[in-house]
Amino acid sequence: MIKIERRSFIRNGLAAGIALSAAPTIIHANDDRPVRLGFIGIGGRGTGLLKTAMRLPHVAIKAVCDTHKPNLKTAQNLVVETQGQKPEGYGDHEFSYLDLLKRDDLDGVVIATPWELHIPMTIAAMKAGKYVATEVGPASSVDECWELVNTYEETRAPCMLLENYCYFRYNMAVLNMVRQGLFGEVIHCSCGYGHDLRARIVLGKGTGPKPKGEGDYRSRHNQFRNGDLYPTHGMGPIAQCLNIQRGNRFQHLTSTASKSRGLSKWSKDNLEPGHKRRDISWAQGDIVTTTLKCFNGETVVLTFDTRLPRPMSFMYQVQGTAGMWMQDGDSSSRNKSVIYLDGKSPHHQWEPFNPYQEKFEHPIWKSYLHEAETSGHGGTDFLELREFVSSIRNKTTTSIDAYDAAAWMAIAPLSEASISTGSSPIAFPDFTDGAWMTNKPIFGLV
Amino acid sequence: MIKIERRSFIRNGLAAGIALSAAPTIIHANDDRPVRLGFIGIGGRGTGLLKTAMRLPHVAIKAVCDTHKPNLKTAQNLVVETQGQKPEGYGDHEFSYLDLLKRDDLDGVVIATPWELHIPMTIAAMKAGKYVATEVGPASSVDECWELVNTYEETRAPCMLLENYCYFRYNMAVLNMVRQGLFGEVIHCSCGYGHDLRARIVLGKGTGPKPKGEGDYRSRHNQFRNGDLYPTHGMGPIAQCLNIQRGNRFQHLTSTASKSRGLSKWSKDNLEPGHKRRDISWAQGDIVTTTLKCFNGETVVLTFDTRLPRPMSFMYQVQGTAGMWMQDGDSSSRNKSVIYLDGKSPHHQWEPFNPYQEKFEHPIWKSYLHEAETSGHGGTDFLELREFVSSIRNKTTTSIDAYDAAAWMAIAPLSEASISTGSSPIAFPDFTDGAWMTNKPIFGLV
Repeated sequence: MIKIERRSFIRNGLAAGIALSAAPTIIHANDDRPVRLGFIGIGGRGTGLLKTAMRLPHVAIKAVCDTHKPNLKTAQNLVVETQGQKPEGYGDHEFSYLDLLKRDDLDGVVIATPWELHIPMTIAAMKAGKYVATEVGPASSVDECWELVNTYEETRAPCMLLENYCYFRYNMAVLNMVRQGLFGEVIHCSCGYGHDLRARIVLGKGTGPKPKGEGDYRSRHNQFRNGDLYPTHGMGPIAQCLNIQRGNRFQHLTSTASKSRGLSKWSKDNLEPGHKRRDISWAQGDIVTTTLKCFNGETVVLTFDTRLPRPMSFMYQVQGTAGMWMQDGDSSSRNKSVIYLDGKSPHHQWEPFNPYQEKFEHPIWKSYLHEAETSGHGGTDFLELREFVSSIRNKTTTSIDAYDAAAWMAIAPLSEASISTGSSPIAFPDFTDGAWMTNKPIFGLV
Repeated sequence: MIKIERRSFIRNGLAAGIALSAAPTIIHANDDRPVRLGFIGIGGRGTGLLKTAMRLPHVAIKAVCDTHKPNLKTAQNLVVETQGQKPEGYGDHEFSYLDLLKRDDLDGVVIATPWELHIPMTIAAMKAGKYVATEVGPASSVDECWELVNTYEETRAPCMLLENYCYFRYNMAVLNMVRQGLFGEVIHCSCGYGHDLRARIVLGKGTGPKPKGEGDYRSRHNQFRNGDLYPTHGMGPIAQCLNIQRGNRFQHLTSTASKSRGLSKWSKDNLEPGHKRRDISWAQGDIVTTTLKCFNGETVVLTFDTRLPRPMSFMYQVQGTAGMWMQDGDSSSRNKSVIYLDGKSPHHQWEPFNPYQEKFEHPIWKSYLHEAETSGHGGTDFLELREFVSSIRNKTTTSIDAYDAAAWMAIAPLSEASISTGSSPIAFPDFTDGAWMTNKPIFGLV
């Protein structure tokens, strides 16, 4: 009861001065209203996003922040080369990003820092009244996810989770097909993140303050946690197909972790005896399987698999009463996928997905095919940043919002809770406090 | 304490007169000692097994039992045509099989009746001192599985679960590779039964007393149960790779069922209004996902999927610290599979499995390639019945025994228990009462 009263007050009371349209992001191909951005965290991933952002017309980079000085200089030089003006640099100490957020010449900020900083920095940016886009990763706690949505409701500063996998060309075509009913009523989905990151996890990436061989945030999380620590690449596109928090919601999940062997074996096979990263005790199980049940009766199987040798796979499947789509499987190319539509495909035989991809190409991909295809991560970085910038221009909500971020990132601590209690079912928080019953989908609408 | 005393007594005290070698089944290619069999249940599946059994040299069919008279006559005629002698027929009432079991001229019986009769009939056959082979299916309860192993320990009459999928050529080659360490330490597996059986479930098969359109045992189980009702095709081969009950055991499982839509939709789309099978309320969820954790730390994901349109798949994957094998996936042929071995395969690329299949062909397949390939279900029926008959000739235990049958078939009621309690983790019974700690593998050893 107390909670409801508090949140009602928040909803009706405060606002940080950003008047939002309820409409989803609208595409304006030739919009020339300038947008001024700041970047927090400009290591490998941040630099990629920075480059992509500068390909968008009329986007000016005003400030950059990184506590690792070489990153800061590289980013400043990059902006000078591309835009002719040097952005202000921040990074003297770990809270320098708060100084960046105080600037009054920023319309939005982009965050690409270590995992555990994404939500706290997003919250700080919202409190500073900025549009904010944050990279993906696991939440540290469910409380933190609540704080994210509470802060959004207090400030009304829109935040966007940069879940670029939602923008994969095949995922958007499949979403299009789901919405057109090609698969009938969706019943079951699978997804995951299968990526052999053993060297990366054990040694670190080396684009931050610690050189490669010293470990980094990903190493720490694998050393001290055991759950699905990277749920959003898999779950993002599937949550869109299932209208999660917009007519549907996750009801509960169970997670089960295998033993942990992959990282230790890799270290013993690849590092000299005496190497300080050779004998680490890793808490993280090699494979974590999470099964989620949705309010509308669908099930989703999510797999976290980055500590064993394997070709990359995102394990996407969407299965309904009228057919099924499956990405990956035994294909040698991870972009190959297959489809089976009841009564349309040859009886009980897969068809290649490519012809369907063309026929059901999502309108966003039709509009931006050329720009996207010449951009990073199969065009997804371009599309997500384009939508973020477009949200700023049009003062709309973002297409992947605080509620999405909270629900998808919360899978990490919820899966840890299940694993640590012997795969107990864990009830999924309703971060919308009931608004999911009436909310409508917002992603991929044009 | 009471239980342990009772079971110790059983182990040391009673025996039904069959003196067993502790050795696994031994292959004698040209063994001509006659084996006399009876068949209980000779519908579609029973007839297939009967034909296969008669291909084995020096196997005589002495008695057949079916309550559906046309089945009985067809089987008797088949035996007369093939062996020149008419087997005695049983089937006047539902307990006629007990009369068949009283015969003193039968070395073994083969059971292929509706699912719920497999375990009770197997128990009756063991009590009659017969070797017994039973078709697969779900257990009705965990108690029934205990009764199965208790009866085996009382009677020492060996029973064999006819889990023919253990004998698939690729599964036996993969088992061979697992045992040779090609995948390193096995960490995670997946398996399942993906087979569009909508028409079959709604209408029944029509080879029993009820004509097609009236439903049958499979219809009943789908109407009144909700769990993984067909776990053994998926789990059998995987349990062999994981040494379940022989150095390892299932520790707990969670199951989650999706909503039930597939059968209702199929009925509405395919049956006339007023058809008495059109408006049945089906309890069984369309997709059931079960995750099992093993004592040695491995995880297994098992899927039950027979109520939605899809190409067939058994979803086999075996993943270890040194590589991964994956059957099926997006292949258009269900026999196509791929492999990735760390440091041997091209970096992060699947290889076709065929060359490995040839290199690591299981010795049993090398010995019986011709006979198997010209037999049913990809040769698996021939191989399983050959081993059953060989066990009888050599008075050995069977290669898939009462403990395997109990553990694999118990997944059905255990998954129902989990689903009915909101995906709660269910502890897995140890049907060996501790013997798994010292037992050695018995399957596929030559």
